[in-house]
Amino acid sequence: MTTDTPEESLDPANWADMHKTASRMIDDAVAHVEGVRERPVWQQMPQSVREGFLTPAPMKSTPLDAVYDEVLSTVFPYAMGNIHPRFWGWYMGSSNFTGALADFLAAIEGSNLGGGDTAAAQVDRQVVNWLKELMDFPASASGTLTSGGSMANMVCLTVARNKMAGVDVREEGITALPKPLRFYTSDQVHSASQKALEALGLGRRALRVIPSDANFRMSIPALEQAIQEDRAAGCEPACVIATAGTTNTGAIDDMQAIAALCKRQGIWFHVDGCIGALIKIAPVNRTMVEGIEDADSLALDPHKWLHTPFEAGCALVKDAQLHFDTFELHGEYLEEKPRGIASGGFLADYCFELSRGFKALKIWMSLKEHGVEKFGCLIDQNIAQAAYLTDLIHTDPHLELMAPTSINIVCFRYRNAEAPDEDLKALNTEIMLRLQESGLAVPSDTTVGGRHCLRVAINNHRTKRQDLDLLVREVVKLGQELEAAAP
Amino acid sequence: MTTDTPEESLDPANWADMHKTASRMIDDAVAHVEGVRERPVWQQMPQSVREGFLTPAPMKSTPLDAVYDEVLSTVFPYAMGNIHPRFWGWYMGSSNFTGALADFLAAIEGSNLGGGDTAAAQVDRQVVNWLKELMDFPASASGTLTSGGSMANMVCLTVARNKMAGVDVREEGITALPKPLRFYTSDQVHSASQKALEALGLGRRALRVIPSDANFRMSIPALEQAIQEDRAAGCEPACVIATAGTTNTGAIDDMQAIAALCKRQGIWFHVDGCIGALIKIAPVNRTMVEGIEDADSLALDPHKWLHTPFEAGCALVKDAQLHFDTFELHGEYLEEKPRGIASGGFLADYCFELSRGFKALKIWMSLKEHGVEKFGCLIDQNIAQAAYLTDLIHTDPHLELMAPTSINIVCFRYRNAEAPDEDLKALNTEIMLRLQESGLAVPSDTTVGGRHCLRVAINNHRTKRQDLDLLVREVVKLGQELEAAAP
Repeated sequence: MTTDTPEESLDPANWADMHKTASRMIDDAVAHVEGVRERPVWQQMPQSVREGFLTPAPMKSTPLDAVYDEVLSTVFPYAMGNIHPRFWGWYMGSSNFTGALADFLAAIEGSNLGGGDTAAAQVDRQVVNWLKELMDFPASASGTLTSGGSMANMVCLTVARNKMAGVDVREEGITALPKPLRFYTSDQVHSASQKALEALGLGRRALRVIPSDANFRMSIPALEQAIQEDRAAGCEPACVIATAGTTNTGAIDDMQAIAALCKRQGIWFHVDGCIGALIKIAPVNRTMVEGIEDADSLALDPHKWLHTPFEAGCALVKDAQLHFDTFELHGEYLEEKPRGIASGGFLADYCFELSRGFKALKIWMSLKEHGVEKFGCLIDQNIAQAAYLTDLIHTDPHLELMAPTSINIVCFRYRNAEAPDEDLKALNTEIMLRLQESGLAVPSDTTVGGRHCLRVAINNHRTKRQDLDLLVREVVKLGQELEAAAP
Repeated sequence: MTTDTPEESLDPANWADMHKTASRMIDDAVAHVEGVRERPVWQQMPQSVREGFLTPAPMKSTPLDAVYDEVLSTVFPYAMGNIHPRFWGWYMGSSNFTGALADFLAAIEGSNLGGGDTAAAQVDRQVVNWLKELMDFPASASGTLTSGGSMANMVCLTVARNKMAGVDVREEGITALPKPLRFYTSDQVHSASQKALEALGLGRRALRVIPSDANFRMSIPALEQAIQEDRAAGCEPACVIATAGTTNTGAIDDMQAIAALCKRQGIWFHVDGCIGALIKIAPVNRTMVEGIEDADSLALDPHKWLHTPFEAGCALVKDAQLHFDTFELHGEYLEEKPRGIASGGFLADYCFELSRGFKALKIWMSLKEHGVEKFGCLIDQNIAQAAYLTDLIHTDPHLELMAPTSINIVCFRYRNAEAPDEDLKALNTEIMLRLQESGLAVPSDTTVGGRHCLRVAINNHRTKRQDLDLLVREVVKLGQELEAAAP
């Protein structure tokens, strides 16, 4: 490059054009979310759209307006549908407009949240402090925002592993452990805990699965017995992973009992609260998660009941020093300074990532805008809606409830007392697929106590009771049609 | 909840108000980025602003406009500054307006990218396919978008660990390994690799650090010798981590030699290409990263030289089946179906996360808008600017270059032939802090070959040569002033 080579950038030649395109996006986005109820929840892509995503890397430029037209015509119509009032599949939040604007502002602001003396880092710290406060964790606890529940659990379980190892596991690795560590969880555990233990080098065999009771809560006597057996066998009982809101049915383990047991036994008490921890801010139902504040570590998920757009999870750790000791690591290019940008501590000392985005802003803005109380009421609302749906199922002779409804998850199926379970699985699967394909509603399915069922997880601030009325009507109608059509 | 309890949501009471606020944000954002050059790169927060971030969780609501006013007055002015043309600290991209709009659109669209038959998932797959194509990886390779380089490296190293373990490490854990695994990297390695090996339960002692040569590239003879020694000592040489662009100086390991060595020895060849991999699309400099296509796994970072807003990293794995076998795990609530939303495969089978955001959209839109060729030219431009700065340093008697400039990173210091190194460290640190505090420019610092230096990493599409002229003038001026003021 000679000193007169013209220099280019990614900035637009004309900012007024960019402004115009951005304004178009705002117009469309408002109409899109405002009108969401009138559209199908989900629809399948035509083959022609699918093939459009197979083209090679674009070497040449395309005007931004044309790129955006493509987004409008090929991307937006074929979304998952979780922003729709009748989406209850798996377990997701339904996003919110302010959160989306916050993601835009965060990207404009641009900061790297790995560290640095910036207001963004202060917002990140404040959001973690708020979540500690809402969970009744002490001010001395630490935390980190993560991509979601999987990483939040993995952060916590890494701290637990390193604390309970009995050796410097960062230096020596797992092979240096004096005794094999054991982690305990119920048979209702989310796969994220298993995935974390596999990643951490402990292996699935470090995870001892405890049977759950009729309400799908971890059996405390079985847990105690397993711990005794493991000690007798020369293993080190390291950590109980309680679940506050299981994925299958929303069951909440008895955290007070588990906390007491862990305390007596010197075992790390971790709570996977990705689904249910935030019930702690719900005025009607908050006692359901009593004991969560006694956890040594807690994973929760703002992108579920705080409805921030993906991604936003959070790991809280009671002992900040242990948390720091697990993750702190600085290259020579990253020395803390007394002044300037690299002063005031590094957020990366509490997580796996060194570069981090400003996901705190969407939580910060949404909590300020709506207030914690509003989110608490919306959580109560979803739990009440699940009770309402449960009542509808109880009173409809064509349907049967397949698990007790604990919180906002309802497991049920179209019934037929004469059909074997495998036929009912096929029938209910077909009902589910037709509901999805029609765009009317999106439940998912699962297997509970060995039996297949439809599963409705109402983590949705847009759902109304009338949507659940419609669901029940449609399930019954589809079930009857399918039975009538059967040979 | 009785059947007549009114139901609430997070949607605004009046969408026209939301539209107005959103439009205000667009106006401000355009002005903010358009005018970035006229503002200080960074400035320290006043104490009053800092204290504002210590307030407890907001229980009540606040109008969104007031929340946004707070963002404008307390958050935006105190950003890190990496979107500014004279930010060259550590190593970051400088974002771009289209990427920020894409983050907004992604949040509005709302899909969970853990899986699902959605256009968003197809965009995610297409972006990974494009990155494979640009890296000359075969179509049969796999990949996953991550939060950044740390997780991209960790994904790759997990696959390497599981492949090289010689046992079912997912089931059995590290203690079952027949031989201790050894990973090799140069003394210039980024801390992320060490952090990953610690997390994976292998421990720091599994990482054997190979000395680098005068150009800060891994010494191949030393690597060969280390591998021999380890085999003789009963260890299993598992993986060489080559670096394409070291953090300190931008040095690029000899990937062709390392690839050949790994092939001969049956060792996994991983490349940390977070800094330099994308040089492969730069027409002038692309031969610098020859051999990268031979890697078994490769970490790269779209939020660096593709300037997507945080976060966006990418892990590529040559053998898709190994990648899948490392991460695939489904709860009973997540069964793949032949039709409907849960058909067509799960993206979560290739990473740690089950819930994932739509970070692909910002890469997709930016690449379409500007074209790969433009990004390639901008990479060449940054490398040429680093050469230009290197020339300025060579011709200024007050400055000395502290390491060969390989790509876009320049290490230098204000010199004084009579001063000991530790005084020069103090002097240059003060120069750096004053540059940051004045808001004129942001370099960072490091230690190279045992000697402290200023470090300018030009990963910035807005930088112009005139900015580097200014930097050199200011460094010399500050150095002279500080020397004159010294007792």
